[in-house]
Amino acid sequence: MSFILTFLGKGGTGRTTVAIAAAKQYASQGKRVLLTTQDPGPVFEMLLGKPVGAEPQTVEPNLNAVQFQTAALLEKSWEQVKQLEAEYVRTPFFKNVYGQELGVLPGLESALSLNAIREYDASGDYDVIIVDGPGDQTTLRMLGMPEVLSWYIRRFRQVFADSDLGRTLSPFIQPISSAVLTVNWSGDNFAEPTQQVNNQLDEGKNAVADPRRVAAYLVTTSDETAIATARYLWGSAQQVGLTVGGVLLNQPSLSMKTATIEEQFAPLPIQSIPFRSGEHWQPLMSALPSFTEAEQAPQPITIDLAQQQVKLFLPGFDKKQVKLTQYGPEVTIEAGDQRRNIFLPSELRGKPVKGAKFQGSSLIISF
Amino acid sequence: MSFILTFLGKGGTGRTTVAIAAAKQYASQGKRVLLTTQDPGPVFEMLLGKPVGAEPQTVEPNLNAVQFQTAALLEKSWEQVKQLEAEYVRTPFFKNVYGQELGVLPGLESALSLNAIREYDASGDYDVIIVDGPGDQTTLRMLGMPEVLSWYIRRFRQVFADSDLGRTLSPFIQPISSAVLTVNWSGDNFAEPTQQVNNQLDEGKNAVADPRRVAAYLVTTSDETAIATARYLWGSAQQVGLTVGGVLLNQPSLSMKTATIEEQFAPLPIQSIPFRSGEHWQPLMSALPSFTEAEQAPQPITIDLAQQQVKLFLPGFDKKQVKLTQYGPEVTIEAGDQRRNIFLPSELRGKPVKGAKFQGSSLIISF
Repeated sequence: MSFILTFLGKGGTGRTTVAIAAAKQYASQGKRVLLTTQDPGPVFEMLLGKPVGAEPQTVEPNLNAVQFQTAALLEKSWEQVKQLEAEYVRTPFFKNVYGQELGVLPGLESALSLNAIREYDASGDYDVIIVDGPGDQTTLRMLGMPEVLSWYIRRFRQVFADSDLGRTLSPFIQPISSAVLTVNWSGDNFAEPTQQVNNQLDEGKNAVADPRRVAAYLVTTSDETAIATARYLWGSAQQVGLTVGGVLLNQPSLSMKTATIEEQFAPLPIQSIPFRSGEHWQPLMSALPSFTEAEQAPQPITIDLAQQQVKLFLPGFDKKQVKLTQYGPEVTIEAGDQRRNIFLPSELRGKPVKGAKFQGSSLIISF
Repeated sequence: MSFILTFLGKGGTGRTTVAIAAAKQYASQGKRVLLTTQDPGPVFEMLLGKPVGAEPQTVEPNLNAVQFQTAALLEKSWEQVKQLEAEYVRTPFFKNVYGQELGVLPGLESALSLNAIREYDASGDYDVIIVDGPGDQTTLRMLGMPEVLSWYIRRFRQVFADSDLGRTLSPFIQPISSAVLTVNWSGDNFAEPTQQVNNQLDEGKNAVADPRRVAAYLVTTSDETAIATARYLWGSAQQVGLTVGGVLLNQPSLSMKTATIEEQFAPLPIQSIPFRSGEHWQPLMSALPSFTEAEQAPQPITIDLAQQQVKLFLPGFDKKQVKLTQYGPEVTIEAGDQRRNIFLPSELRGKPVKGAKFQGSSLIISF
């Protein structure tokens, strides 16, 4: 298991440079580091000063780097899908489509990158994985995938099972599955593969929710749009259950009152970091915080069973920007173009919300 | 039909500022303009200096602005899906899931934004639609969706029809469809809805391929990583069939030789644009080019039937970075983490590639 660290912030604030410095710093401390980037363009290699490919390669002692290439990852995943098909399906037809011809649709880069990160994490080869991504809502949606997908499976499975449609289709499922598949399952035909997926999703959800496993840091300059973006991403990160450990203030201008920035990001620690010049990475590396302080940062969600309360940390949002609804069986929170369905412990499940109020930066929901 | 204009470039180069200036410039010329942004954060409103919502609203004469909110668009689309389901399905089950609880998965923002742009385009309310998006590979994948989706439908339909699986399933399709659906189709049960989708995809493909309908401009500063990113996006845009009309050079430093930049982007016109300061948009607006010059830019693909040649304009890539394969029934070009299957005219379809060579920035494929 690795510690997975990513950086959020507006484009042009130096996220990639910081990611590289963090990777170098960990490597210099003897950790086995994998530095990944989702940016397929030339900038990553220019900043790192080394060529990087679609497979991890050592760029300095303890430090491997990889540039995710969606087309290549898709090819690899397609081969796995074809193998799975060949195992379960009598006369596979995916085998007639080649991974080398599959086009890349939006969202695939997130799904495939997350899957690649999961595999590198599971490999046991790395103590730390640094994820250089778009650093915005896209990164958050990627890390939110396990939770959102779990919800889709949970919700649609239930609705389908309860529906006339499910009952209408069920007599056909057995004959089709025995005609098409090489196995004759009894009972719930899709329990086995679904359970496998669910386990992976649960592992993903648990990792993202644990700041010892996954953490994010904000990167900003003293530019007001960069600060506003960092604040927005800070709040949005909570909506996917991701802990933000602190703020890195890149090239602070002398005229700026650091106090103003501290106020905007309280209670997070703020670290000023210097400009990197040319090959001189050391000053930047030395200025980086110990990222383990993320464990002290406010948790995105706290459930208090005794008080029958759920506390959501939502910095940067006020009550007007947060929508709380109970249309389906779960409580849904909408904020910052993210929607989160809260999977409640059985004690609170199905109960109506009695009230909700903001206390500081937290939304307290009472049942 | 509207003219759809977007800007590509590295984060922090001023793409959003330029998009706003272009929208203001068109509006000042009496065009009916819709300015859209896919950035859900606070920066768009800060730069525009006006509040913007999920529905278009007038921010100045002739100029409407809208901030796409994926969660809201998803809710709206879900209602349409439910209506469609209710029309065709005897006992709909989607109706038991509420749009207000649906979580946002990666890729949905691209699909839903593109669909919203399509609807605004079809409404006839706008002469120009300015699209402020992530401005990177994500924007290109969004605009490439109609072509890639068409390919998936074409390819998998054919493979399925030819397969044992298709033949095995076909006896079940009729009883299921009559049990589940309110209609009894004969023959190809899914011809009607598929044809509708195909028509929309064809319209989208044709629009993206026509620089009088859709065009992109590159935005860069004189920073070397910004220039490299712009060049990479220039080449990648060709892979989705999108014409790049020119380059906007933001705040050129006095010391920089413009000639160096011109060389890197030849034959595109390069326009230096000034810094916007505060409310003074006019100098920036006046410095913008007439975006109709995109019609003179090199076309992404040219087919010469007499010579049996296909010419692909791929600036910024050399032969090593481009992969040409013929695994499936079409010719596949891979470059810049994009894969394109070229749908050839019937005269060339199914023919093997005889040779391929780079001529200037173009790849000439001979059949």
